[in-house]
Amino acid sequence: MDAMMMKDMMSRTSMPGMDTMDMSLMQACLDACSACEQACTVCATQMMDCSPACMTCADMCNTMMRTMLRMQGTTPAAMMAMLDACIAMCQVCMDECMEHADMSEVCKMCAQSCQACVDACMAMRNSMMAA
Amino acid sequence: MDAMMMKDMMSRTSMPGMDTMDMSLMQACLDACSACEQACTVCATQMMDCSPACMTCADMCNTMMRTMLRMQGTTPAAMMAMLDACIAMCQVCMDECMEHADMSEVCKMCAQSCQACVDACMAMRNSMMAA
Amino acid sequence: MDAMMMKDMMSRTSMPGMDTMDMSLMQACLDACSACEQACTVCATQMMDCSPACMTCADMCNTMMRTMLRMQGTTPAAMMAMLDACIAMCQVCMDECMEHADMSEVCKMCAQSCQACVDACMAMRNSMMAA
Amino acid sequence: MDAMMMKDMMSRTSMPGMDTMDMSLMQACLDACSACEQACTVCATQMMDCSPACMTCADMCNTMMRTMLRMQGTTPAAMMAMLDACIAMCQVCMDECMEHADMSEVCKMCAQSCQACVDACMAMRNSMMAA
Repeated sequence: MDAMMMKDMMSRTSMPGMDTMDMSLMQACLDACSACEQACTVCATQMMDCSPACMTCADMCNTMMRTMLRMQGTTPAAMMAMLDACIAMCQVCMDECMEHADMSEVCKMCAQSCQACVDACMAMRNSMMAA
Repeated sequence: MDAMMMKDMMSRTSMPGMDTMDMSLMQACLDACSACEQACTVCATQMMDCSPACMTCADMCNTMMRTMLRMQGTTPAAMMAMLDACIAMCQVCMDECMEHADMSEVCKMCAQSCQACVDACMAMRNSMMAA
Repeated sequence: MDAMMMKDMMSRTSMPGMDTMDMSLMQACLDACSACEQACTVCATQMMDCSPACMTCADMCNTMMRTMLRMQGTTPAAMMAMLDACIAMCQVCMDECMEHADMSEVCKMCAQSCQACVDACMAMRNSMMAA
Repeated sequence: MDAMMMKDMMSRTSMPGMDTMDMSLMQACLDACSACEQACTVCATQMMDCSPACMTCADMCNTMMRTMLRMQGTTPAAMMAMLDACIAMCQVCMDECMEHADMSEVCKMCAQSCQACVDACMAMRNSMMAA
């Protein structure tokens, strides 16, 4: 997302802790959710055991991304709860995909996207907790 | 959802607690999420203060519904976390909409849909905790 | 959706043809899209050949439903184009699911939901064309 | 999306014309849809006249992106119909946002994202027609 658009979005929220949040953490989290949604959507089409987890992970990542993009419409508690759900689901999906990582390059990359999404959501969560 | 389809779906999950879950609790929760997504989607178009909350609530309700419909792809922990996020967001949306409930019948009905969704998600959550 | 909410939604659109549209056609189409999204979401988890079609059909049905719920934000041309896309995708999904209809009750029901969605979207389309 | 993942995805589809499609056209279209979904989601929170169009445009862009990511689950006709719907909706949203482009930098950027998405979808469409 463009830096100007991000700045405008942040200026319109009154969520506690957002005024001191590092913009780059939020940007990294948006990008990680978007990349994970795409990787999971492709991985789900392989019809392996991980597919249902990948479908749900894609939906949660999209909802996480949209929740962040509309910060003025949420509260820190609801945002945190969605971060927790997204982190939990990415871990489920990553575990499933890692079981086939040696058989499928797509699963391996999907697991990496999930790990990156967990890390980015954790960083957002820690920053909000510290605020 | 058709009872046969629900039964098939439940038979394919090995999630702990699901074998003893009351089908009607799950059905009620699916219906409440679906109704809440629809009410929030309409309410968001009114361009009142509640709109951003309504948009996010619609997305979370849809993701909650889809997560339940794909139980074999998740874990009790991830399902619980999504239930918590959905409950938290429905409460935010309900609080926002209640502030205009006397000015807008749509806001009043949206708030009622959110309350019904909170209740149905709580019932699912309690049933899973008891299992 | 509640009749009051539907009426309010219709009163806020200025889309040509909507003032003369039969409310029950729109309501039937919303219900058919919602039911088809749910059936396809369950069917996709079976890991049969139809799964990728079911996933895409679920997404198109949800977007079709939301587009109808926000009529004041679209035009007849964009609405028609989305109806065409949804009809085309439901037919693809139905054809795929019918190939396993004797092996899977879920595929059979998913195909029936797709057919019902095609019929309801066609009825909306015809009503808009006549206006 | 990673080039390896894109290549794997393309190798699993038998959709006519896909074997000769320029990978970079598809990649550009995925990126344009994703960027447009994000811009529209932010723009919708401004509570201006364009908001309902932005919400619907965000949903169509997401569904367009996911449809492309699951090419083995669709047909050229359904893909084309979704491209047409996405193009029509991006044009509606762009027109609405351009009316406030001098009052809101966010609307201006949203309109630019919509234009870029129209262009990328048109390029995909033309490539499929030529095949």
